Amino acid sequence: RIDSDRLWDSLMEMAKIGPGIAGGNNRQTLTDEDGEGRRLFQTWCDAAGLTMGVDQMGTMFARREGTDPDALPVYVGSHLDTQPTGGKFDGVLGVLGGLEVIRTLNDLGIRTRHPIVVANWTNEEGTRYAPAMMASAVFADMITQDYAYDRRDKDGKRFGDELERIGWKGDEPVGQRKMKAFFELHIEQGPILEDEGIDIGVVTHGQGLKWLQVTLTGREAHTGSTPMPKRRNAGLGMARVTELVHEVAMDYQPHAVGAVGHMEVYPNSRNIIAGRTVFTIDIRSPDKEVLDEMDARIRDGIATICEALDIGFEIEQVGHFDPVTFDKDCVKAVRDAAERLGYSHRDIVSGAGHDACWINRVAPTSMVMCPCVDGLSHNEAEEIYPEWAAAGCDVLFHAVVETAVI
Amino acid sequence: RIDSDRLWDSLMEMAKIGPGIAGGNNRQTLTDEDGEGRRLFQTWCDAAGLTMGVDQMGTMFARREGTDPDALPVYVGSHLDTQPTGGKFDGVLGVLGGLEVIRTLNDLGIRTRHPIVVANWTNEEGTRYAPAMMASAVFADMITQDYAYDRRDKDGKRFGDELERIGWKGDEPVGQRKMKAFFELHIEQGPILEDEGIDIGVVTHGQGLKWLQVTLTGREAHTGSTPMPKRRNAGLGMARVTELVHEVAMDYQPHAVGAVGHMEVYPNSRNIIAGRTVFTIDIRSPDKEVLDEMDARIRDGIATICEALDIGFEIEQVGHFDPVTFDKDCVKAVRDAAERLGYSHRDIVSGAGHDACWINRVAPTSMVMCPCVDGLSHNEAEEIYPEWAAAGCDVLFHAVVETAVI
Ligand SMILES: NC(=O)NCCC(=O)O
Ligand SMILES: NC(=O)NCCC(=O)O
Repeated sequence: RIDSDRLWDSLMEMAKIGPGIAGGNNRQTLTDEDGEGRRLFQTWCDAAGLTMGVDQMGTMFARREGTDPDALPVYVGSHLDTQPTGGKFDGVLGVLGGLEVIRTLNDLGIRTRHPIVVANWTNEEGTRYAPAMMASAVFADMITQDYAYDRRDKDGKRFGDELERIGWKGDEPVGQRKMKAFFELHIEQGPILEDEGIDIGVVTHGQGLKWLQVTLTGREAHTGSTPMPKRRNAGLGMARVTELVHEVAMDYQPHAVGAVGHMEVYPNSRNIIAGRTVFTIDIRSPDKEVLDEMDARIRDGIATICEALDIGFEIEQVGHFDPVTFDKDCVKAVRDAAERLGYSHRDIVSGAGHDACWINRVAPTSMVMCPCVDGLSHNEAEEIYPEWAAAGCDVLFHAVVETAVI
Repeated sequence: RIDSDRLWDSLMEMAKIGPGIAGGNNRQTLTDEDGEGRRLFQTWCDAAGLTMGVDQMGTMFARREGTDPDALPVYVGSHLDTQPTGGKFDGVLGVLGGLEVIRTLNDLGIRTRHPIVVANWTNEEGTRYAPAMMASAVFADMITQDYAYDRRDKDGKRFGDELERIGWKGDEPVGQRKMKAFFELHIEQGPILEDEGIDIGVVTHGQGLKWLQVTLTGREAHTGSTPMPKRRNAGLGMARVTELVHEVAMDYQPHAVGAVGHMEVYPNSRNIIAGRTVFTIDIRSPDKEVLDEMDARIRDGIATICEALDIGFEIEQVGHFDPVTFDKDCVKAVRDAAERLGYSHRDIVSGAGHDACWINRVAPTSMVMCPCVDGLSHNEAEEIYPEWAAAGCDVLFHAVVETAVI
């Protein structure tokens, strides 16, 4: 079994970098804090005798050699970047859990046949730069590196420039590594495991997602002296689309969700009718047909809403992945490990997107989930218990070692 | 008659300070640009032989002496601050129109019995600091100076600190000046005069206003992995309140208007359900009872919406004025001037708030309005024709001089 205290201490140590305002973290991708978090991880990897590779998307790959020089490595990992008001475990558990697997192997003096590589994928969260899971998407050839480099944050800063600025743009071409398998440990970010009192989620599927960035163009005008019928109110348009997204999601739940979490209003003055709004619709379903139907209904609805308000619209898809079915053998390795270790477990569908969802397209992949308190994530109050983390990491350890030994 | 070219040149000269991005202006109150605009105005006042007084709210009072040392001055003026995406005429026409009245008197060598004072009221727009017409509200004793000083902008900067920073906090106590009358020239900011082809609006009333700043508190959570029934979505709450405000206004139009122009979302991330939203409701009516009814319906509606979404709310009234009836004699002076000069005119209700609305509580007051293209204001594309400005300024000149001579 892994060393639960060491894992927990490392989690708490990493959480000191980029502290939030309410006990969580703000270590958004390609910020100085992200750079600092990477350096700490690198120090730990050096101490564990790993060799570090960094690719052109900034993804870090820390490698422990195997006994067979020709054997494909087994990969583990997740991400160290956080939401602006993120928790201490989302992503971090998967990276430091991977490191704990290595440290435990070192303690036990076990050499696996296959090398083991711990990965820290760049910009998983997608909050500063859309899409989410950006580096793993480039790795899996789902978007181009040029497209990724050209993404801009709200202040207009380019992804490519920021990656260079923080000093983590590597030389290695992206996506050339071959993997025997990829395993990602992650907190559930939803309430199912805790509600059912279950230790381990064996992730069989991931739901699909679409992010639609909508720009509505009305006309700035005075809120007091502009007659109601003369208004072309882009703020009201955004409100109606937000309600529409909710209604569509409610029609398909529990097999779908939808919300608008990002909204910008221009010029955002108390006494100016908004002339322009920009916002992002997030819709998800484990069923591709449902997702496409939601997408179509929302696009139709936007057209209708905008026609009624005499405002213009543009819709840009800034994120998308189809529902995922994880690799049968990897899923089995996770399930068997939980079983063997005596942890209660159930199959589960991931509600969130993960780097594993992309890597699954280029290598056999699956995920291990552990519960989080009240299903809460993307909130500084995100919490897990050390026992939960340890159980998840134990299962990861066994699944990885079993795969790396053969 | 006034010098139309000189008036227009001054308007265009002032518009060079704090240029916008689309041909208008961004000269928000207490910014460096506001300071620069004030200095230009001061230069012009000096050249016209006026003496400047500045009160503790930063309002500028440029005085031309009369022949009778005991006679109360006649005041004219408006404001030089703009919206973030404002026009070149909103407010500016009233200040520089007042200056043109003085310049014309100087040209003609006319000495009036009463002194004439041109005022530039601080923070009329209310966009950086609520409430609007802040300095005239303190002048009329409707809010305290301490309350005004403590207002904060979106970056947390205090009004009082910013006033000192730009160097325009005067020594003069606010509200001690006595006025024979106050006249404000302003663009209509609505479509009535242009639609009816009329030169001059004789402003008999102003509609009342309420600004309600609403804070909704939900719970930040993951947009993908949080089941729909578990969400406490402050963004959806804001959308519903925005729609509610629109519906309530539609029920009372054409005698009321309502909108939400200012919205903030926290943490504003694509994949986080908003945990908090802050936004300002703007409702107006020329009928106090209607305004109160709208206010009550909206407050009830907010409670209902928030209960359904399991979110908390706070409502703070950050701006308010009752409908205004302007002074009979001042209104007559404006109407007579228009009549005498042969301009077409009609009585009109101001849809926007103006410093005149507050000053009317402490001195006989009225307003002169001229049309603006397409009724558009609070938009950089705001436009008027030089003839329209000249007609308004001619009427202002005659109303002021007639009142100042007697
Ligand atoms: N796990 C996680 O929060 N990923 C961010 C991408 C998403 O929104 O699902
Ligand atoms: N005239 C004008 O735009 N005043 C600003 C205050 C308001 O919103 O009415």
